[in-house]
Amino acid sequence: MKFIVQRQQLISSVQDVMKAISSRTAIPILTGMKIEANANGIILTGSDSDITIESFIPAEEDGMINVEQIEEGSVVLQARYFPDIVRKLPDNTVEIESDENFNITIKSGKAQFNLNGQDANEYPHLPNLQAENSFDIQSDLLKDLIKQTGFAVSAMETRPILTGVNITIENETLHFTATDSHRLASRRVPLEGVTSDSSNIVVPGKSLNELNKILDDTGEKVEISVMNNQILFRTKYLHFLSRLLDGNYPETSRLIPDQSQTVLHVRTKELINTIDRASLLAKEERNNVVKLTTKDNQLLQITSNSPEVGQVAEEISVQSLEGENLKISFSSKYMLDALKVIENDEVIIKFTGAMRPFVIQPADDDAILQLILPVRTY
Amino acid sequence: MKFIVQRQQLISSVQDVMKAISSRTAIPILTGMKIEANANGIILTGSDSDITIESFIPAEEDGMINVEQIEEGSVVLQARYFPDIVRKLPDNTVEIESDENFNITIKSGKAQFNLNGQDANEYPHLPNLQAENSFDIQSDLLKDLIKQTGFAVSAMETRPILTGVNITIENETLHFTATDSHRLASRRVPLEGVTSDSSNIVVPGKSLNELNKILDDTGEKVEISVMNNQILFRTKYLHFLSRLLDGNYPETSRLIPDQSQTVLHVRTKELINTIDRASLLAKEERNNVVKLTTKDNQLLQITSNSPEVGQVAEEISVQSLEGENLKISFSSKYMLDALKVIENDEVIIKFTGAMRPFVIQPADDDAILQLILPVRTY
Repeated sequence: MKFIVQRQQLISSVQDVMKAISSRTAIPILTGMKIEANANGIILTGSDSDITIESFIPAEEDGMINVEQIEEGSVVLQARYFPDIVRKLPDNTVEIESDENFNITIKSGKAQFNLNGQDANEYPHLPNLQAENSFDIQSDLLKDLIKQTGFAVSAMETRPILTGVNITIENETLHFTATDSHRLASRRVPLEGVTSDSSNIVVPGKSLNELNKILDDTGEKVEISVMNNQILFRTKYLHFLSRLLDGNYPETSRLIPDQSQTVLHVRTKELINTIDRASLLAKEERNNVVKLTTKDNQLLQITSNSPEVGQVAEEISVQSLEGENLKISFSSKYMLDALKVIENDEVIIKFTGAMRPFVIQPADDDAILQLILPVRTY
Repeated sequence: MKFIVQRQQLISSVQDVMKAISSRTAIPILTGMKIEANANGIILTGSDSDITIESFIPAEEDGMINVEQIEEGSVVLQARYFPDIVRKLPDNTVEIESDENFNITIKSGKAQFNLNGQDANEYPHLPNLQAENSFDIQSDLLKDLIKQTGFAVSAMETRPILTGVNITIENETLHFTATDSHRLASRRVPLEGVTSDSSNIVVPGKSLNELNKILDDTGEKVEISVMNNQILFRTKYLHFLSRLLDGNYPETSRLIPDQSQTVLHVRTKELINTIDRASLLAKEERNNVVKLTTKDNQLLQITSNSPEVGQVAEEISVQSLEGENLKISFSSKYMLDALKVIENDEVIIKFTGAMRPFVIQPADDDAILQLILPVRTY
């Protein structure tokens, strides 16, 4: 195998593929990165067996030459030092060559690295996904869906299914839902023209998080296909494959209250800043709990109290306040997580009493829904 | 005590003073910050008993009002949350007030924090340094002296005196020296007009490091005075006090070779990049060792070898190479540390054989001297 590649292209592909490579893996060869060269270009592959990422560098693209002097072949190199090496090489191009003993030579300018490689035949074979049951989505919309729900997955392995995001398609609607049983985040978007059967899968939150880091928000097309307990996200030059979580995702729609006793309209940024300040004293001992109290004259009061350190109180004026008066305590962290992914200037918060879950939505968009369970305080 | 202060001024003073406050201290009140208000302004004090920092916010400065409505008094508040609180307050001004029970109220905009404080009389009294034996230096020069020597102090407590920087004044010359017994860094600068007796002290490297973070490189005047086993750095609004290390600093001048067998002139940046690349594979198992070999035709070769991972080799052309041929191994980390603090485009490296310490200096300035002991390789 041999080729000469533009270093910037290589840096960016290596960075993407590294997101799937872990130094702690039960399969030693997976600490390596597979490099494959053929007449079309180079394919880099990394995997931790949960996630597999393939990045393709085309030999030629829009009349620009990315890869030259290609001699076909493949090899696996130790991934640990590779990103640093590529980043620090002196020249704009990098020559990579491997011999029959998998000795790899990396040349750039006057610098030459000789690395011990491994036989690419020992690298696990990836499932050959047939994109039968697939649909397309724009990358920026997919990133939004992940950002607005992925943070709410459970970090605990006690109920493994909750560490994933539930993705369903039904009635031409794509629906992302995540919950850790203390809060829930969901968003639906229309999927026009998708006539496929309804589907219901659970993708590990960690996988979606890594995918979000790799995807550009350029609005390029992402093709999503599901098969054999795997999900494949495919862009022009990137394949991102993740296993799915086994099991049935709990029915969450019954958690969402269908009526409300107190309804607030409030400016998102102001509420974020006020709760952020109130949470400063509540960091550890009180589990980030803050209290919201409705006042007369379109005012809310946000307070927090940490016996060892002190108290904080701040009033905030709201756009409107309808219904019953209310005192409610909740995790400031959950509230901030939910508010920060809402990009609208104004949110609606619907409460059904101090002990019942409450719902946060953008003022003009009910496709996004954040639900938080209050905290009982004594 | 009461005052209203400009928030930006308070943020920057609090940040400086926090550098001296540790959450792990044997004296509980030192986890707090002392705040003192008098007609002239506010003084914030933090200390970990090794370092004490006082920052002064003048009530008025160049016709600008920084502090208003001052009622004299003092209090100690818990420092842990204070920087975050001040940073996140909503308004441009902050009102701080404490009552006779040391309850502290912090108000800004509609936000109000009530914090439990402590009696400032319980805060340790700071030594009242008389600036008898003092001299002045510009802050940017002082920062350079610290940067060019402080990194070479020992991180090990086995010889405590080596964890400090040796500062001497003799013959109108200020001299900073640091060594961890594997390398040495020194710089001298002329101190015109200082007729005081010669002095020889050792300042903890950690103290100088913190001082460097706080000092601006605006070239403002820093007054340095030494007394009673303490050193005080004083600028217009900042007092930085550090204890000195006890004991005699070793005589280091005899370590510096006065002759050389091989002399290189080389471009600093090129050498840094080449050694940085060569060290990529040498990170752990080989203690960062790289090898330098002189070649014909004004060339050096830098190599490194990590049996598990592979080898790296790179040639670099030098400006001049005089004397005997040489193969020498050394820590790439020590070499990079030394080269990075030399701001000149070109360095001279003087070797006296593969087993002897070698000297690195800027090509046109012998006031800076970096010395490194080579590594024996087999």
